[in-house]
Amino acid sequence: MRPALMMDRDAVAAFLDEVFPQIHHGGPGPVVESVGPLSATMRLPYHERHLRPGGTLSGPAMMGLADVALYVAILAQIGPVALAVTTNLSFNFMRKPAKADLLAEARLLKLGRSLAVGEVLIRSAGQDEIVCHATGTYALPPR
Amino acid sequence: MRPALMMDRDAVAAFLDEVFPQIHHGGPGPVVESVGPLSATMRLPYHERHLRPGGTLSGPAMMGLADVALYVAILAQIGPVALAVTTNLSFNFMRKPAKADLLAEARLLKLGRSLAVGEVLIRSAGQDEIVCHATGTYALPPR
Amino acid sequence: MRPALMMDRDAVAAFLDEVFPQIHHGGPGPVVESVGPLSATMRLPYHERHLRPGGTLSGPAMMGLADVALYVAILAQIGPVALAVTTNLSFNFMRKPAKADLLAEARLLKLGRSLAVGEVLIRSAGQDEIVCHATGTYALPPR
Amino acid sequence: MRPALMMDRDAVAAFLDEVFPQIHHGGPGPVVESVGPLSATMRLPYHERHLRPGGTLSGPAMMGLADVALYVAILAQIGPVALAVTTNLSFNFMRKPAKADLLAEARLLKLGRSLAVGEVLIRSAGQDEIVCHATGTYALPPR
Repeated sequence: MRPALMMDRDAVAAFLDEVFPQIHHGGPGPVVESVGPLSATMRLPYHERHLRPGGTLSGPAMMGLADVALYVAILAQIGPVALAVTTNLSFNFMRKPAKADLLAEARLLKLGRSLAVGEVLIRSAGQDEIVCHATGTYALPPR
Repeated sequence: MRPALMMDRDAVAAFLDEVFPQIHHGGPGPVVESVGPLSATMRLPYHERHLRPGGTLSGPAMMGLADVALYVAILAQIGPVALAVTTNLSFNFMRKPAKADLLAEARLLKLGRSLAVGEVLIRSAGQDEIVCHATGTYALPPR
Repeated sequence: MRPALMMDRDAVAAFLDEVFPQIHHGGPGPVVESVGPLSATMRLPYHERHLRPGGTLSGPAMMGLADVALYVAILAQIGPVALAVTTNLSFNFMRKPAKADLLAEARLLKLGRSLAVGEVLIRSAGQDEIVCHATGTYALPPR
Repeated sequence: MRPALMMDRDAVAAFLDEVFPQIHHGGPGPVVESVGPLSATMRLPYHERHLRPGGTLSGPAMMGLADVALYVAILAQIGPVALAVTTNLSFNFMRKPAKADLLAEARLLKLGRSLAVGEVLIRSAGQDEIVCHATGTYALPPR
């Protein structure tokens, strides 16, 4: 049986803004759209600082979004543990994202005592095709 | 026999600033320190926008640095091909970087006709320990 | 619109046995269960050569299974191209597999002209939990 | 200061044969060539069960070799802990290996309390070019 969520969307969003104010540096940062059992959806609002030649968005914008989406899925499930740290991230970039918001759907494949593993699908808002697929591992503090 | 470099440090740096002005958004972006046969060294000057709780630097700062370091190593070797695109990046985060410049050493393990593969070691300036190890693949345009 | 499959289950299975007889070395190798649009399911029959201490199965058994599952998904979609080659594989091992058959579900996230990218979920037969998650990239011959 | 090795080449080789006799199933398995500080070199003797069409060697043969090379580098450093488990492996396949022995050089980039991270370079015996690059993470038991 899957345990209940420890934090809802608003609680996670408030915690994130408190511990990571820097994600909004230079423009709007990722926004928590929703959280669910072992999952989270985040939106990165379009901003020119993410733009790259050819009207596409930067790799680091997608990588940062995937990282925080996994973190939010973990937070929602286990509560406010600021010290969960990313140990591994792996990305496949498949298509150039459009000049639009990015949507990231994270789901946890494993939530163990000391490690969480998950994957993230990133799409341009309003489009079906996956632009980037990520997998990541977080080391969790004792709890 | 390994072919001569097509671009030296200054030529690559000028090209990078021309095609990717955005890497300096919000503060100083990565700087080309040196290029060599199948290799490049980049420096990311310390800036508060990379700072994270606990006095460490953000994952995306390291990820963007690794990506551009591989790109610069490719450019130096094959000349100004703005359209080389990252298809895969994989990161292991091993230690928290210090509140200091980051140095990234990239070397290409393969430079084929259509794919380049390389690895990047990232350290905090003045320190021996590797904080992040990255591997990456670029798809190269026909040339 | 997604193109029709070029090979059905039996055609792919026959092709695989013809070009890769070695996958059955020392015992039964992976079996094609089904193929579908951009997807394939493979089964690795339990055999003692895959056994490891503690009654679990070897990493290489799972890795080989994931690799061939992606290959089969590609073959079904684009036809018998023996020369598709793996360029990248990345694995997260999440749980110890049981002493049982392994089932691998592959789906292609991108099937481009020169690169195919996909992911594979591996479970022990009859169980819900994912024991291994893989992503992989194949370089495709001109066609 | 780096701690002394806990096991030398012969001790690691004997331990490996005792806990993983299966690596020699169907033909000779990987051999420990040498161990050093945070490093190990392994050889996979050429055998027809690794052969693939075109006179090259199988991906799983290289993947299994990389995995065990990291394990041996860890064992040499921390002593006989059979229960170290692989949590992540990532491979870039860069050239087709020759019909010859494979040599794998593993080095640990981090040996922490609960995680070890390393990379492996695989070459065909007698050749300079890297055929496969791997990175991997092991979860270590409390010690």
